[in-house]
Amino acid sequence: MKPRRILILGEGFSHDAHYGKTMRGIVRYGPDPVVAILDSARAGELYEGIPIVASVNDALCFDPTVAIVGVATQGGRFPPAWRELLRSCIAKGLDVESGLHEFLTDDAELSELAARHGVELRDLRKPPEGLSVPTGANFEHDAKVVLTVGSDCAIGKKTVAIELDLEARRRGLESVFVPTGQTGIAIAGWGIAVDAVVADFLAGAAERLVVEGVERGGKLLFVEGQGSLVHPLYSGVTLGLVHGSAPHLYVFCHVPGTTEIDGSPGHPIPSLTALVELHERISLPRRPAAVGAIALNTSRLDEPGAHEAIAAAEEETGLPADDPVRFGGAKLLDAVLAGL
Amino acid sequence: MKPRRILILGEGFSHDAHYGKTMRGIVRYGPDPVVAILDSARAGELYEGIPIVASVNDALCFDPTVAIVGVATQGGRFPPAWRELLRSCIAKGLDVESGLHEFLTDDAELSELAARHGVELRDLRKPPEGLSVPTGANFEHDAKVVLTVGSDCAIGKKTVAIELDLEARRRGLESVFVPTGQTGIAIAGWGIAVDAVVADFLAGAAERLVVEGVERGGKLLFVEGQGSLVHPLYSGVTLGLVHGSAPHLYVFCHVPGTTEIDGSPGHPIPSLTALVELHERISLPRRPAAVGAIALNTSRLDEPGAHEAIAAAEEETGLPADDPVRFGGAKLLDAVLAGL
Repeated sequence: MKPRRILILGEGFSHDAHYGKTMRGIVRYGPDPVVAILDSARAGELYEGIPIVASVNDALCFDPTVAIVGVATQGGRFPPAWRELLRSCIAKGLDVESGLHEFLTDDAELSELAARHGVELRDLRKPPEGLSVPTGANFEHDAKVVLTVGSDCAIGKKTVAIELDLEARRRGLESVFVPTGQTGIAIAGWGIAVDAVVADFLAGAAERLVVEGVERGGKLLFVEGQGSLVHPLYSGVTLGLVHGSAPHLYVFCHVPGTTEIDGSPGHPIPSLTALVELHERISLPRRPAAVGAIALNTSRLDEPGAHEAIAAAEEETGLPADDPVRFGGAKLLDAVLAGL
Repeated sequence: MKPRRILILGEGFSHDAHYGKTMRGIVRYGPDPVVAILDSARAGELYEGIPIVASVNDALCFDPTVAIVGVATQGGRFPPAWRELLRSCIAKGLDVESGLHEFLTDDAELSELAARHGVELRDLRKPPEGLSVPTGANFEHDAKVVLTVGSDCAIGKKTVAIELDLEARRRGLESVFVPTGQTGIAIAGWGIAVDAVVADFLAGAAERLVVEGVERGGKLLFVEGQGSLVHPLYSGVTLGLVHGSAPHLYVFCHVPGTTEIDGSPGHPIPSLTALVELHERISLPRRPAAVGAIALNTSRLDEPGAHEAIAAAEEETGLPADDPVRFGGAKLLDAVLAGL
């Protein structure tokens, strides 16, 4: 197997907090080196020390072996201009990985080109064969399941699950991060993108992920949440994941100060207290789950502002709150372990 | 176009309240004649006056032109023994329609056989091309949307929507029934099986259905609900449909006396009051929806028992209740119109 040296394709999106989230996740948490990022508008700059280049040709001096589509477009389709970029990667001998709903491996031209150049196309969001509805195994294992949920998409549910898992493993706990989306899969090397499965099999896919987390040795599972129960586009995925993963505890993620769903004008975000209560009520009666802690994404605030926001969230909800990326996962993990 | 004379394939399932629901829906509400039902274990009996036969050969004297798979298996896969039955229908020159997740048109052998015999295979659950996330059009039309929801699967959400639509049209209202599942599609001749779409596009499919209902002249839409918010297998589909159809009002469906999800032992059904409140809370904040009426399926009760159950539901919830199949849709439609 050739070593994985990653070129991230972030064309037009690498600056964007929402659509560039796959890129940032891979850079921060992926086990393999990211050697370059392609975004012609920012060529010459650095991102976390990684050179940004204008073209696939310009990236070649950094010796990449795999190109990862590092954007998550709304609805998951390929922007048309990307086709040329993908052809170029394949022609230069790079494997290509994509997390979009439009599958590379279903594209006759790209597949033919890949075969001709001896490279592999991988669709991170392509569901595995044989999915079905849950069997009940999600209620029969003896691990503890913690699910990150939140007030919107792209606010840190995956990151919080990863940080809590890292902190738990640092303490010697048998913890496993359970990836449920394309970035999590790119980072962890396994998983199912639950938003890409047939809707009837949402809970079945979530169950299968939890069972695999247990098989991978997890006594404590941190499941990556998706979407939000109050998101007008993606709430179905959220609830299928909530019920299929059957968590014992939630960690609720939020960006302080946000009051409207990003990209959905006119769709308000309810109060933290209302959201905590909504999640507790929507738990399956067979496994009622409480919110054990609030994870705030304070990246838009200065440090005193972050401490204020954390104190305000604790005051409002009566729950421990923290920003695990900024201040470490210890406090939230303590709260999780106390709540299980 | 050849006239539609329907043979329903109910092999092994025609007696089953849950898995035979497609059959019963087509017999009761479909516009085309059902000339025979195939179920070898019950051959010689009648169902609502329709002869039950043992084999495709035995059905031929009733001159069917189309065979409909009249069962909805859990998870939607074909029982293996069915393949021979389907081959037989095709070989005898019948078109075949199926609402299962496993598509006839994806099956090389059946497709080849159909081409050879000049018959058509139709997958009622196959999603249309070009689905994506909602555009906001679900909040921009001026029709009133009523969604049937409920405490479990297969308890009458489709039937209640159909009965209310029939009653509304009898009164001269511009009402449209909006089908969201395979039986509704078989009955109405249009629709999308929302449980079969890519999970990320659940709400987008529901939005598209509502928009089509408006385009079909609906000022009042009765949208067929799916699953249940408290169903451990299908709740994701339910919530995607709730948020994507963005109803102004719910009609809540329930079978009096049931306290556990059918087929999911250990999963309790909460009280009517708790379920009403849960649905009202889970509405998108941009369009809060109340439950306007309770539709009870009293088919297991005698008539005094039905009246008692209706009175008890009204007493518990403070909402108008009735069984629209047994006693007509007038009272529930009055409640709906008062609630809009």
